[in-house]
Amino acid sequence: MATVTLLSDEELSPEAAAVFADIRAVRGTDFVNNFWRALAHDPETLKATWERLKAVMAPGALDPLVKEMLYIAVSVTNGCDYCIHSHTAAARAKGMTEAQYGELLAVLGMAAETNQLVTAMKVPVDAVFEAG
Amino acid sequence: MATVTLLSDEELSPEAAAVFADIRAVRGTDFVNNFWRALAHDPETLKATWERLKAVMAPGALDPLVKEMLYIAVSVTNGCDYCIHSHTAAARAKGMTEAQYGELLAVLGMAAETNQLVTAMKVPVDAVFEAG
Amino acid sequence: MATVTLLSDEELSPEAAAVFADIRAVRGTDFVNNFWRALAHDPETLKATWERLKAVMAPGALDPLVKEMLYIAVSVTNGCDYCIHSHTAAARAKGMTEAQYGELLAVLGMAAETNQLVTAMKVPVDAVFEAG
Amino acid sequence: MATVTLLSDEELSPEAAAVFADIRAVRGTDFVNNFWRALAHDPETLKATWERLKAVMAPGALDPLVKEMLYIAVSVTNGCDYCIHSHTAAARAKGMTEAQYGELLAVLGMAAETNQLVTAMKVPVDAVFEAG
Amino acid sequence: MATVTLLSDEELSPEAAAVFADIRAVRGTDFVNNFWRALAHDPETLKATWERLKAVMAPGALDPLVKEMLYIAVSVTNGCDYCIHSHTAAARAKGMTEAQYGELLAVLGMAAETNQLVTAMKVPVDAVFEAG
Amino acid sequence: MATVTLLSDEELSPEAAAVFADIRAVRGTDFVNNFWRALAHDPETLKATWERLKAVMAPGALDPLVKEMLYIAVSVTNGCDYCIHSHTAAARAKGMTEAQYGELLAVLGMAAETNQLVTAMKVPVDAVFEAG
Repeated sequence: MATVTLLSDEELSPEAAAVFADIRAVRGTDFVNNFWRALAHDPETLKATWERLKAVMAPGALDPLVKEMLYIAVSVTNGCDYCIHSHTAAARAKGMTEAQYGELLAVLGMAAETNQLVTAMKVPVDAVFEAG
Repeated sequence: MATVTLLSDEELSPEAAAVFADIRAVRGTDFVNNFWRALAHDPETLKATWERLKAVMAPGALDPLVKEMLYIAVSVTNGCDYCIHSHTAAARAKGMTEAQYGELLAVLGMAAETNQLVTAMKVPVDAVFEAG
Repeated sequence: MATVTLLSDEELSPEAAAVFADIRAVRGTDFVNNFWRALAHDPETLKATWERLKAVMAPGALDPLVKEMLYIAVSVTNGCDYCIHSHTAAARAKGMTEAQYGELLAVLGMAAETNQLVTAMKVPVDAVFEAG
Repeated sequence: MATVTLLSDEELSPEAAAVFADIRAVRGTDFVNNFWRALAHDPETLKATWERLKAVMAPGALDPLVKEMLYIAVSVTNGCDYCIHSHTAAARAKGMTEAQYGELLAVLGMAAETNQLVTAMKVPVDAVFEAG
Repeated sequence: MATVTLLSDEELSPEAAAVFADIRAVRGTDFVNNFWRALAHDPETLKATWERLKAVMAPGALDPLVKEMLYIAVSVTNGCDYCIHSHTAAARAKGMTEAQYGELLAVLGMAAETNQLVTAMKVPVDAVFEAG
Repeated sequence: MATVTLLSDEELSPEAAAVFADIRAVRGTDFVNNFWRALAHDPETLKATWERLKAVMAPGALDPLVKEMLYIAVSVTNGCDYCIHSHTAAARAKGMTEAQYGELLAVLGMAAETNQLVTAMKVPVDAVFEAG
């Protein structure tokens, strides 16, 4: 069930097809997942999203696997089913071990719990935690 | 503004005082932040939360700094002000560089954006993303 | 999968049946969607919700299509699957074009991203943004 | 209280200064609000965010005021204080009347309520609401 | 900081003044809290909200204190600062003991944690949990 | 669809099997629901979560049914489908009547609505609502 159709390669506009070609080249696979097929109805947003994602998720000061785990953390907290599935799969493809996944889950659960407790009590921020 | 008072060392029950002593020993500092002073009204929850946090955030398959960044990711997505402040400070204390922080922010922003797009379109999960 | 059964017309209490009759009259269709069939177990909440919805979504200072798009914005941000589906369908029925839908998605994604960045940095509110 | 300092014009890198110059030119005012001063620590994210925001919020198939109201809807649902303040001010600057604001609030409240009811009952999506 | 001004008794429209009179009569106090003073700009929403709140929070199959604690649970999970403060105060005024408050907090924290774990793993719903 | 497999009794580690035995003993049934079967991949988190849940949900200053309803309130607000199903079923098993469930829903909807209105207007907290 979706609110838009998923476009096949044959249904793409030339602008969308160019983005798909770059996704395939960067990822080294012919497979293009449903998110991009849904977004392809609007080539401008498709291109802007892909270009930014490509830059943000590239290796840098943070390891690509760490970035995937951060992506999972946001997606779980937002309850985005598709994103949880796709980024958990991506993290495993990038080498996440079961031990790492287990610790990731434990941190996510712990953070959700203490967030809730802090929010319930409206704890004032300690002065030492503020920036400059 | 809080919904509970913050307990000073003098106001702690013996059970709460024992937890505070362990916090100080583990962290190697006399400073105990407001979260624990608010939680100290209920020594059982105080102890359970501290014991679990100590275990979850310890070095393991994931680096402690990575765990702090995951904690920030959840806290930002939940909008927990206190937690954002305290864990950003903790990540910096554990060596997070400005370049790492910049990339962390970029991933958090990107994840929030694609979560929103995916959710709006209710994209069906690709079969390849499912476990076993 | 639901936590309540969906009531058929034959299973309605007289109070719920009266609300269903008004829904059909106002909307000009015999079709009553599942939300109301689930809510019909509690005729008081059914009636209060329908009466308020009818007033809030009526034409006024804002166009009914704008109201539907605002409803989508809240529903997406809350991750309410049913609501995303029903209000996206309602917006299309009220004339939302694909170009409008594309821009709606782009704004929703952008807002989620900058919300996340602002929250992560705990940016203080500029004085000029405050009321009175 | 923030987790980063707010950069003054004198503290900007050349890349950040160029973005600030464009913000001023596009908006026709010398005032640059705190969000950009916080984001300026990372010129790449600053530039990417501003360029995308400029494109997304420009007049198009949707009116700029409608876009601001959609931005408010997301920001309120996410509980982003800064964003609520800044986009409510922006909507008023673009001509939002008090009557429109009142209806916006009423829709936001109603949507939050029915989202909650639907989610509690896990109402299955009616077949007619699905896309193609 | 607010996005609207708070209306004093002298600034109320006759319709809003009538609602304030009923709030005072039902609650048995002259004090009217800021939520209603902010909402009073739109007498229709003010009246609809108050009338529904009065009905929903009245004694019924659930005890008024239980209703206040449920209200706190939603408000904490949504991160609504004002609501957390006002409903925690209301629960105390209705007799919530410190022991009850401690258990309430423990449940809220636990629920947030297991919600997060379940969502991360996308656990399928057991057949026995579904309604008729 | 899940991101982990569900472990059968035969696949459990000895540590996980011991937790399952305690779940069965405490609940007085051989049935162990999917949440625990998913969590069983990580016996440490499994054990910590079960031990804490057992303590938190036990009878105390709050009635076990009230605790289940609070759990539902958090789960609905977080949009955790599995949790909504499992805790609604648990509340019914503990005697929640349809009248109580109807009032629970009404409070959850009302709270979501007023949370949204308060957040949109950024209403300042009344001084009387603050703790000591």
